[in-house]
Amino acid sequence: MNATFNNLLSLLDNTESGLYGKDFLLTWEKTHNEIETILAVAEALKNLRDRNISARCFDSGLAISQFRDNSTRTRFSFASAANLLGLAVQDLDEGKSQIAHGETVRETSAMISFLSDVIGIRDDMFLGAGNAYMREVGAALDEACADGVLPQRPGIVNLQCDIDHPTQSMADLLHLKTLFGSLENLKGKKIAMTWAYSPSYGKPLSVPQGIIGLMTRLGMKVDLAYPEGYGLIPEVVELAGIQTKGSGGAFRVVNSMEEAFKDADIVYPKSWAPYHVMQRRTELLRSNDHGGLKDLEKEGLANNAKFKNWECTEEKMKLTKDGKALYMHCLPADISGVSCDEGEVAATVFERYRIPLYKQAGFKPYIIAAMILTNRFENPAKELRNLEHRGKERVI
Amino acid sequence: MNATFNNLLSLLDNTESGLYGKDFLLTWEKTHNEIETILAVAEALKNLRDRNISARCFDSGLAISQFRDNSTRTRFSFASAANLLGLAVQDLDEGKSQIAHGETVRETSAMISFLSDVIGIRDDMFLGAGNAYMREVGAALDEACADGVLPQRPGIVNLQCDIDHPTQSMADLLHLKTLFGSLENLKGKKIAMTWAYSPSYGKPLSVPQGIIGLMTRLGMKVDLAYPEGYGLIPEVVELAGIQTKGSGGAFRVVNSMEEAFKDADIVYPKSWAPYHVMQRRTELLRSNDHGGLKDLEKEGLANNAKFKNWECTEEKMKLTKDGKALYMHCLPADISGVSCDEGEVAATVFERYRIPLYKQAGFKPYIIAAMILTNRFENPAKELRNLEHRGKERVI
Amino acid sequence: MNATFNNLLSLLDNTESGLYGKDFLLTWEKTHNEIETILAVAEALKNLRDRNISARCFDSGLAISQFRDNSTRTRFSFASAANLLGLAVQDLDEGKSQIAHGETVRETSAMISFLSDVIGIRDDMFLGAGNAYMREVGAALDEACADGVLPQRPGIVNLQCDIDHPTQSMADLLHLKTLFGSLENLKGKKIAMTWAYSPSYGKPLSVPQGIIGLMTRLGMKVDLAYPEGYGLIPEVVELAGIQTKGSGGAFRVVNSMEEAFKDADIVYPKSWAPYHVMQRRTELLRSNDHGGLKDLEKEGLANNAKFKNWECTEEKMKLTKDGKALYMHCLPADISGVSCDEGEVAATVFERYRIPLYKQAGFKPYIIAAMILTNRFENPAKELRNLEHRGKERVI
Repeated sequence: MNATFNNLLSLLDNTESGLYGKDFLLTWEKTHNEIETILAVAEALKNLRDRNISARCFDSGLAISQFRDNSTRTRFSFASAANLLGLAVQDLDEGKSQIAHGETVRETSAMISFLSDVIGIRDDMFLGAGNAYMREVGAALDEACADGVLPQRPGIVNLQCDIDHPTQSMADLLHLKTLFGSLENLKGKKIAMTWAYSPSYGKPLSVPQGIIGLMTRLGMKVDLAYPEGYGLIPEVVELAGIQTKGSGGAFRVVNSMEEAFKDADIVYPKSWAPYHVMQRRTELLRSNDHGGLKDLEKEGLANNAKFKNWECTEEKMKLTKDGKALYMHCLPADISGVSCDEGEVAATVFERYRIPLYKQAGFKPYIIAAMILTNRFENPAKELRNLEHRGKERVI
Repeated sequence: MNATFNNLLSLLDNTESGLYGKDFLLTWEKTHNEIETILAVAEALKNLRDRNISARCFDSGLAISQFRDNSTRTRFSFASAANLLGLAVQDLDEGKSQIAHGETVRETSAMISFLSDVIGIRDDMFLGAGNAYMREVGAALDEACADGVLPQRPGIVNLQCDIDHPTQSMADLLHLKTLFGSLENLKGKKIAMTWAYSPSYGKPLSVPQGIIGLMTRLGMKVDLAYPEGYGLIPEVVELAGIQTKGSGGAFRVVNSMEEAFKDADIVYPKSWAPYHVMQRRTELLRSNDHGGLKDLEKEGLANNAKFKNWECTEEKMKLTKDGKALYMHCLPADISGVSCDEGEVAATVFERYRIPLYKQAGFKPYIIAAMILTNRFENPAKELRNLEHRGKERVI
Repeated sequence: MNATFNNLLSLLDNTESGLYGKDFLLTWEKTHNEIETILAVAEALKNLRDRNISARCFDSGLAISQFRDNSTRTRFSFASAANLLGLAVQDLDEGKSQIAHGETVRETSAMISFLSDVIGIRDDMFLGAGNAYMREVGAALDEACADGVLPQRPGIVNLQCDIDHPTQSMADLLHLKTLFGSLENLKGKKIAMTWAYSPSYGKPLSVPQGIIGLMTRLGMKVDLAYPEGYGLIPEVVELAGIQTKGSGGAFRVVNSMEEAFKDADIVYPKSWAPYHVMQRRTELLRSNDHGGLKDLEKEGLANNAKFKNWECTEEKMKLTKDGKALYMHCLPADISGVSCDEGEVAATVFERYRIPLYKQAGFKPYIIAAMILTNRFENPAKELRNLEHRGKERVI
């Protein structure tokens, strides 16, 4: 009998999970109950692991990963989550496959899924393409199931697309829930999701979009700040505004880091490329126009350089609530004087928040595991209770 | 008690399996009983999985994969099969190993095998080399076992070589058995294994060779069709003819797709490179003659282009038995207007058979698992019965 | 009840293991008891495996591998060891990660470790850097644990660095213990660790350093032989001399292969690059000076070529004890007339010792598994007894 575990399970018993058999592609496609369910399952899995109780709910099975962009944190988080539940990771490396051979997404999706339980996909390079690709895979899997080609429909977990980065924003939320005590306590808190200077360009929009798309639902006061011309996908910005209705939250767009930081409880300064630059970049990538990409990079970096003062400094931190706002980042950050000359954040600020930042990252494996578990098991509470009851040691 | 499972096991009880400890390199090295055993074990494993009964017969152990050519289907099938039985896949990536360092096949084979149970190899680029390589590995393993270097002899599964593609042809056969009801029912059925036009060149010969080398043994009437100059390895063609004796089957080579399609119950139109082109290509690859390879490709493509009418069209399908022959392909196919402008098969034909084609591919993981299981367990029926009796859930 | 197993466990019961929670980076940081413990645990694990008793002491968990240089033997040994104990291997491929993105070692180390039990690292290209990198990772893990970022501290296993190759030298030692009957029997035996000619340059110093750093502690008479200018890291050579005190062993440096071979019980002829060449190479690698590297290679090869007579020939073998010294190598060897024209060893010598050489390599998976097990379990004997008592079959 573990009080924390039991409390989490009571919470799960009282909610209806509509997550079973559904892909996790965008947080705003999930109900508030479902968001809470993911958090509670993640915490329960962490609780089991901390007590050396095995969370293997699969004796065998495959977790497919497809990374169309580099990844450390998410790759290891996915591998850890799969392993925690008993699944073996098999990477779909398009360079080593026959996909270049004109094979359709519909076909590949079925071919890799005969004995698979989950597919994790990162596809964040092409604006308008990443999330669409995941849905194309999903539709192919639905069809293959309906056709009797697949005995079961593997779930899809969005490991970052052009629109959202739900495993990141959900891990961020669990971090906030842990630090502030409850989701309830987040109501009325101000979070500043702001652009920051970086000596690189072409960073995805999915993190800021994921944050404004999730936090506005929780009654938080969300300020999105960026220099003129660094806008996000308009539909997501619009959605953020709409979501404040009913949640008691607020959302506004400002063009000053200082203004966003003012009285903020939480700041999330992070670089991204302007929406319209990502659109042009997508076209150039598609047409394999290396010259054009180089020119765009030069132009993008020159434009970034105009906004070097968009750095999260000690001075700006003083503007926040009692000068003590929580600093967040999805990592790796561009730390001035550490990983670059001038970057997103001053070294002293980063260092002061390094430990909470790393803890923030540590929630991701459990969030992904919760996304997998709730996709595969209709009654997550029952499954978790079984795991505790079985009481198999992880380290024997 | 599951009737299908019990029927399969009865079948296994009545056959003698000589598969134990023997590599699976060419179907024609196996007896008819052994072919039937693989099919029955594959079906029994699928039956267990469908009933959520774990088929893990290894608590730990490694399945080594070595892909000397790209692969999606076979790579995932091997990974799925290994995982189904409880083995972890470890890839031998020659680029990341010390093999370039002048290490011999004899040595590498022993070095990767100390704790390994099975080695799956794809090596289909070099004519005269792929199957020979597998045998060289096998001989090295035999020697290492006899020398006391290895505590056990890992089995080898041919995941496609220059001569045969047994995991493909056996999955194809299981597909046919499933659709036609039994191997008995295949007797007298006509299958057209025919060349088809593709806008690429250098495709291996192993699929058509695998099909004529297996189906001629089952009393089927096999027509091999190709344009002049697109012959297969002469020894395999000769073997196909010899094998019809006693099986009640028939085999002939024709130079017309139409003639092969006439009254066929099954058609298998698929591109391949002419035998003599593959011979030249092998020499050029060996001597790293990039210019020569480019010239050969140009020549090959130009030659292919003379036979664009070798396409599996709706019109040609009308020539088959009642116009309703089963269309087969190992995938991915060159589909006209879908994955290329002009290819092996008309889009409407492919689409009509897409579902059975995908099901055909779905047998491969179980065929490979059956090859592994029969290699490692002297009495497959006993092992399968144990697995059912244990009744451990796969998804717990 | 298995006598060998029980004897090994009695030995373990009588020693104090200080290995728990400690990284294995250099053999000379470990006590004699700890060296003996690793050997006994390795033998006990092999004994369990030989009796088909599962040695899985983890129901789930990750073993991270990071190879900054090519590897076959060590890669497969690490994978085998992890799998034997129940851990899944996840490779940290820096090319596919965000590490290029300016991420610090401190950060990456924490990020990959949330659910990891062990990290194996090969980093042998840069003199002064490999071992230092491992310690940097270790310090980051310590810090992350102290900070509450990590719930547990993964152990680090040195899979070859610039200074030592402990999984190699310990496997070599287990080989010697097995052949000579006991560590006791090694006392007074002469081993010749000598340079040998190779038509390649830039080979790490870690193997000869590992051998002189370990064998001098066991009362062996160690001759280190190399042509002038091919010295090792001075600190390690000094250490070898110091270690003979108390062990009853001896250590000297000679400049003649023949002298080292004279009356030797064991010879270990193996090429390496001179210390000062490795230093220059490190600088050139760091500054990405391809021209400089080419020049250095040319110079290095020209210098090597002066010492082609440093080959382990039949004639030289006759100088050894009764002409029958045991020939050892870490493999792959440069075999004259087999893997190169002129190399480290004559083909007939190599072939005569091929079987023991392969057996020597076969100890590595068990040595690595012992390093992992002793790092994770405070009482290895108790854990091993539990595994035997549980008696779960590996092949079921």
